[in-house]
Parts: sequence; C-alpha cells; structure tokens
Amino acid sequence: MSGGELLARRRRLLGPAYRHFYEDPVEIVRGEGVHLFDAAGNEYLDAYNNVPCVGHAHPRVVAAIADQAGRLNTHTRYLAAPILDYAERLLATLGGGLGHLMFTCSGSEATDLALRIARFQSGRRGVVVTANAYHGLTTAASEVSPSLGPAVAPGEAVRTIAAPAPGAADPEREGERMAAELAVAVAELEAAGHGFAAFLADSIFSSDGVVPDPAGFLRPLAAAVAAHGGLYVADEVQAGFARTGEAMWGFQRHGIEPDLVTMGKPMGNGMPIAAVAARAELVEEFGRTIRYFNTFGGNSVSIVAATAVLDVIEDEGLLANAAATGAQLLAALTELEGRHPLLRHARGAGLFTGVDVAAAGKPTAGADSAALADAIVNGLRRHRVLIAATGPRGDVLKIRPPLPFAAADVDRLAGALDDVLAALPA
Amino acid sequence: MSGGELLARRRRLLGPAYRHFYEDPVEIVRGEGVHLFDAAGNEYLDAYNNVPCVGHAHPRVVAAIADQAGRLNTHTRYLAAPILDYAERLLATLGGGLGHLMFTCSGSEATDLALRIARFQSGRRGVVVTANAYHGLTTAASEVSPSLGPAVAPGEAVRTIAAPAPGAADPEREGERMAAELAVAVAELEAAGHGFAAFLADSIFSSDGVVPDPAGFLRPLAAAVAAHGGLYVADEVQAGFARTGEAMWGFQRHGIEPDLVTMGKPMGNGMPIAAVAARAELVEEFGRTIRYFNTFGGNSVSIVAATAVLDVIEDEGLLANAAATGAQLLAALTELEGRHPLLRHARGAGLFTGVDVAAAGKPTAGADSAALADAIVNGLRRHRVLIAATGPRGDVLKIRPPLPFAAADVDRLAGALDDVLAALPA
Repeated sequence: MSGGELLARRRRLLGPAYRHFYEDPVEIVRGEGVHLFDAAGNEYLDAYNNVPCVGHAHPRVVAAIADQAGRLNTHTRYLAAPILDYAERLLATLGGGLGHLMFTCSGSEATDLALRIARFQSGRRGVVVTANAYHGLTTAASEVSPSLGPAVAPGEAVRTIAAPAPGAADPEREGERMAAELAVAVAELEAAGHGFAAFLADSIFSSDGVVPDPAGFLRPLAAAVAAHGGLYVADEVQAGFARTGEAMWGFQRHGIEPDLVTMGKPMGNGMPIAAVAARAELVEEFGRTIRYFNTFGGNSVSIVAATAVLDVIEDEGLLANAAATGAQLLAALTELEGRHPLLRHARGAGLFTGVDVAAAGKPTAGADSAALADAIVNGLRRHRVLIAATGPRGDVLKIRPPLPFAAADVDRLAGALDDVLAALPA
Repeated sequence: MSGGELLARRRRLLGPAYRHFYEDPVEIVRGEGVHLFDAAGNEYLDAYNNVPCVGHAHPRVVAAIADQAGRLNTHTRYLAAPILDYAERLLATLGGGLGHLMFTCSGSEATDLALRIARFQSGRRGVVVTANAYHGLTTAASEVSPSLGPAVAPGEAVRTIAAPAPGAADPEREGERMAAELAVAVAELEAAGHGFAAFLADSIFSSDGVVPDPAGFLRPLAAAVAAHGGLYVADEVQAGFARTGEAMWGFQRHGIEPDLVTMGKPMGNGMPIAAVAARAELVEEFGRTIRYFNTFGGNSVSIVAATAVLDVIEDEGLLANAAATGAQLLAALTELEGRHPLLRHARGAGLFTGVDVAAAGKPTAGADSAALADAIVNGLRRHRVLIAATGPRGDVLKIRPPLPFAAADVDRLAGALDDVLAALPA
C-alpha cells in the first residue's frame, strides 16, 4: 500500500488527531539498534527516538519480554519479587529521600499522579511550570502543558514562568531569574486562593527548546520552590535513564533533590511503563486514604523489559557512551554552526542536543525560522536521517538518538546536515 | 522469600497505596489458560481476571508479542498498516456511527480522553455517573469515580444517579427510573452553570454491584441523555470484548448506540492498550485543534497483541463459550443460592456474574455482609479458587474468569463455593 493510501486510511480510521512526521512520511517496519527500515527495505539513521533507549529491538529486552509473556503477565495485587527487585534497584539510582516508587503506564499518568499526590499532600492546588512546558495529555497534565497551544485551556490554578533561554546573556543567573519569577507566580496563586502546591519542570526543558546548561543552574530555583513551601517535581521523562551522559537523571546534573520524580518513555524501551518516585512521607497519607490501583502499571512483562533496560545501560556502558558520543555530536553541531549562518546556540547534554535555526541576529533568507527548521528536518529525512524540531517557535532542531549512537553515526548525521544546509537557499 | 518478607518489601519500596488480594496473599509466577501457579507450584483456578481474556499466556498472543518485539516497537508518527487493519476490524464490531478509534495505554486514559472530547465538543463540563461508578484513576477520571470513596473529592461538575439495583421491584423500569434521576441531575448541573456534557456508564455496572439485566433496560436512559443534549459514553472496559456472551460489547446487549465508547483491560490480554471509539464528527474539531499524541498508545507490540486477541476470540468461539459457560455458571450460582441463605440475587451476562452475600431480609449470623463476602473470598482462595468482591458495600461476589472457562471449571468453582459456604457459621 502506498504512503498516500496509508495516510487516507489513517485519516478515515483514526481521525484528524493523528499527525505524522515529515512531508513525505515514512512507513517503518523494522528497527535494529540505531537504525530503522521502511517497507521497501531502505535504511534510516534514527537520531530522534529516545523511547528505544538501548536501541531498537535490543535482543536482551526482546528475550525478556518473550520469556515473561510466555509465563505470566499480571497485575500488582498478587505478590511478585521482580517488581520489588526493580523498584529497589531503580530507587537506589535516584538517591536522596526518594523512597517509594509507584508504577503507571505512561508519563502522562505519572504527571497526573504526581499532581494528585502534591495537591492531596499540600491541600493546595497551585502549580507553576515553564512557559512552553509539556507534561502530558490527561486533563490535568494538559492543564500544565502550555506547549499544547492556546486551544488547550491552562488550568485556573496554573501559572508559568519563562523557561531558561539558550542564548541568555548570563546563563549562570537563569536559576535566580526563574526563582524571582516563581515568587511572583506563587504570590498570584496565593492571592487567587489556590496556594502553591508544586513546581514541575522537565530537567532538560525539551519542549522549551532544549536547555541543559550550565549544569547546576536550577539550584536557586529549587531552593526557592522549597522556601515557598512547594514541592519540586522533576519530570525525567525526557532527561532520565542515562540520556544526559553525566548522570542517570537530569536533576542530578543540577545537584538538586526533587520531592517527586516522574519518568516514562525510555523506561521499558518501548513497553508501556512509567512511574512516580516520591519522598516516602509524601505518599503515606495518600496511599492510605486514596486508592490507587493501576491495572497495567507495573505489569509482569513491562517490569522485565524495564529490568533488561537497566541491565543493558550498565553492561553496555551507555551512560559513558551518551557522554562521549554526545560530546562528539555537540562538537559536530558547533562546527557546523561556525560554517552555516542558519544555525545558532548548539547545546546539549549527552545524547540530547538542540540547535536553533535562523535565530534573531542572523540572516533568515526571508523565511521564518520554523519553516526553515521544517525544511531541514524534511531535508534530512530525504537523506534518511531522522530528527525533529521543538521549542516554542518550532525552530530548534532536536537530535536525541537511541543511546548506542556511535561516532560513525555522528559523522553520518553531521554530513547529511551539512549537505542539507548547503542546499538551502542562502 | 516468604509471603511476609515480600509484603514487607512491598510496603517499604512501593508504599501504602499498594493493596493485595486475600488475607494470605498469593505469589503468582506462572499462568496458563484459566490457571495460575504460585512459587511453590500450587495450581489455582482463576475465576477473577478479565484482563487475560483469552487465557493466561495464550500461545498465539505470546508469539505475536515476541515476533513484533523482535522486529519493531514504535509510535504512531510513522505510518504503519497493522494499526489501521486493527482499527478497521475493531470499528466494524462496534457498528453504528462509531467511525474513529484513538489509542491510549489504559482505561483511565481512555476515560480521560472521552471526557476531554465530550467537554471540548459540547463546551459544557457537567457529567453524570452512577452512584458507585469507577472509571479510572487520573485526576479527571477519579472525579467521576465515586467508588473511590469520600477521600477522593468528586468533581464539582459531576452528579450521580442511583445505579440499577439487582433486587429492584420492577427491573424493566430501572432505565426509566434512571432517566428521571438524570433529568434532576442535569437540571442541577445547568443551574450550577456547568451544563450537561455527558453521561458515563459501565455497561455491566461492575463497581455498582454487577447489574446486567434485563437486557435493554438502558434504552430509556440513553434516550434521555440524548434528549438533554448530552453524549452517552459507554465504558466497555469491563463488559467489552465478548465478556457478556451475547455480543462483543455490553452496550449492544442493551440495544443502544453510544456516542463514545471506552475500552481497555482485556484488549491486549495484558499488554497495555486501550482506546476511545467515537462518532467521527465528535473528534473532527478536537483532532484538528487539540494535539493528542500518546507515545505508547497504539504501539506496534500492543497492536499485534490486540490483533491476536480478536483472532483467538473468533477462532476459539469465545463469545459462544462465554454465553454457554456463563449460563452454566449462573445456573450453578442459582442452585447454590437455593440451598445457602447467605446468597441472593445471582445474576450475570456471559462470564461476568455476581451474587449478593447476606443481603437484607436474610439472616446474616450477626456479621455484616462485607465481612461475610470477604470470608467467602478468602475461603475460596484457601481452596485455590480466585474471585473477589465488589459493589457499594463490598458484599457482591464478583466471578469474572478468563473467557476459555469451561464446564469443568464451573463445577470446581461451584463445589468449592458450596464447601466454603457450608463451613461458615450459620
């Protein structure tokens, strides 16, 4: 079936909410490591997908899934050791006072649960997020996700502060600037009678445009959250699981200790599994008085997949690879930025990198920056290199490959990007 | 590790929200068909789990999962034929004007999405549910789930009506009675400025105590929902996928045409997959203006599991088996009710049956009915037959086995229940 026919069937069966990547969308039928293959057998370099964090169809994850599916897949109302072994191991990586792990199916459910816990525990409703945050798609999570655009009403007890800016004049001071804006937002929430329950932030600010640096800039902000009596919720759906190369978790790069941590996408290498980690005392009363049973949350098969993910991250040294290959990737982008005036502010932590397209102060050839970013993303797709764009204006190239990305993959990506940039109208 | 040690580890690692079944909880390590096996090799008859609807570890589902996991597990922003084939096939079973299928990970996310669609489309917020409804655990879904108890605040735009009663004087009139109560609830919602967006009901009223009969009693209620300008959301998480023996979907037994249908638990035989089906026009504007991308929703592996579930339901005649074995099960419960004064109102549709314990008008031996139901559930567990209790007072035995349940399984269950009842204090 042709791409056009598949698109027509999608529109007819799934409706208009289902968007696809690329002007000429790809039909992917197979994956292996950092490569994807379409129905015609063409190979693509995957420089986008963080969900298959240890690589597409990793044999150890696949074997774990197949074995467990053949034995049992059930819920948490029976006793089972594997979920406890996993929880113990994962909590040990988080450190601090994060003592309990509660399982959900998706990062959205994790955000939603974290909000329920924070609001129940504090007795307050007010939440502060960054200006283009994305934290999920349930009703409550979408209300703290201004990146969804004006059609999704923000919650009445939600306020935003400006995200850290990649091009800030004094990046070291971004945390203090955000802390000052937080004070204003908290005062507004208190004046409106909502009170201040929690501050939520993606530890790498992906939808805000990818802002990793300088490590540690969040410390004044985290201190301010605590000083205002709120809980700090670190959304690690993007930055977690070795992605940033420096630490297992994005918040650890910043040296802060969140009260709640949400995680999801890469947790099971594609199997639906997500979780909330919490300081134990935060869920004592919630757990006793509020029922929370998530049928598929922590199911037997998702747990063995998640366990295999931790095994592979450790055994294949993927944290160190994210650091080393990520540094090569950032160096390659920085080198391209030096030669191509359309690129600016290449930045990254580990294998999560971003670069602005045609930002202010550089020539834009008359087209707006989002259209240029789109042209680059689609140009790369024609070169069979898959990335995407993000940020408040959609003009940040987001390069975030599976963690086994290698030096040769960086070269291929950089070469293709060089070609695409060179072919764009000057 | 002993059960006590596992319980202590659960409490320490997962926190107090994690409840377990049975006074003496079971550690299940393997499943096959309608049987579960504990760590010591003891076999249990599963008369509870609807998630593994085609049987635990069904070889065709397992093979589909293993094969697909080894090739690709990705999201819906690439084109793929299997998700479209599945959607087309599933929508054909729903009939009516239900033209679009949108995938989520869990029934909770499906409820949440249905609420978002209904509220967006109508511009109104008010929702009516039954008095002990359960529709999920996100913030928005929990607000329409009064069965969670008084600690979970109902939404301010949510009203309840009494559920149909198994012992109603005139069961045929329950739909009219509910329609009259709906009119009052709608008037309240309109007076409060919320307006009336939707009525949600589990088509077999599981948490309200299991109320299947008489088929068709919901017709006056559905007509009233439409007359008041609301959308009818059929929650098929419990009643769907051939469970009731008469039709693929619980609402079809009642001859009604819902505007939205939510489904989940049995959809992937344990793989996390759920969905919302909608009249196409309801998601046109929603889909165009609201972004809805669920990372794991409709992932490649969950889709092949769900496809295998439909294959097995068809090829093994599980709808007919649910009808035939369900009739035997109901006959056995009715026979027991005739001999044991603690049982009352045995009822069921297909392989979803309920029976009240010590309802009013029968001797209760001084203990309350929930404690008696609990004693029966735990007594059966000692006989290695697994069921649970439900209903507003927790005094309804819920017997809802995997669909391949056979006549011999009914005999074993009924024999064990007979023994447990005989051993209870008179």
